[in-house]
Amino acid sequence: MNSQFPSGRMVEMRKGRLGEHEKGRPGEESFIPRVQGHDFELEEIISRGAASPEGFWYDQERNEWVLLAKGEAILRFEDEGVMEMKAGDHVLIPAGKRHRVESTSVDAVWVALHFRG
Amino acid sequence: MNSQFPSGRMVEMRKGRLGEHEKGRPGEESFIPRVQGHDFELEEIISRGAASPEGFWYDQERNEWVLLAKGEAILRFEDEGVMEMKAGDHVLIPAGKRHRVESTSVDAVWVALHFRG
Repeated sequence: MNSQFPSGRMVEMRKGRLGEHEKGRPGEESFIPRVQGHDFELEEIISRGAASPEGFWYDQERNEWVLLAKGEAILRFEDEGVMEMKAGDHVLIPAGKRHRVESTSVDAVWVALHFRG
Repeated sequence: MNSQFPSGRMVEMRKGRLGEHEKGRPGEESFIPRVQGHDFELEEIISRGAASPEGFWYDQERNEWVLLAKGEAILRFEDEGVMEMKAGDHVLIPAGKRHRVESTSVDAVWVALHFRG
């Protein structure tokens, strides 16, 4: 029993760098899990110019806070229209809020935190 | 009862930008809560060149995943020495891992996720 980790799940120190998994074809997205908790997952997304397929909408069961850490992107929300994003912009997307990725720059890298309300 | 939000906590869509709360004196850190879950908190930290006071060590009860989103910084871990960080670098710091901030650039902005193991 270790009082510092009451729930018994220990983590180890780990350093990383956004975009370090750069290998992938243009237009091919990579999803890299970074941290996982009891009620959340944090992942890195390397977009490489990818967009959502035509007619596709994300309709997620969990809330998502997403930061565009590098590059540029355009999101579209079904009921609010287009949102232009530059590096440093972030948005909290409630569960069930339909949205899609209209476009991303080839250097676009995201940090996405998925969590239950 | 809303099946989309089984735990009953709803979030609203909210857009922001790292560093938008730029007001503060040089060397004065700002901590801006961004998202809160059942077992985590995500905050933005604007460092403005701040460093930990001499002899001070962070010794946190929770794990912390921290991303340097902008600028440069140097962390020191009691048992591992110095870690130089550039924008895009991130590190997972286990609870109880003693560390301090040796230095930050005036434009340093972090995203920190605190969570229990």
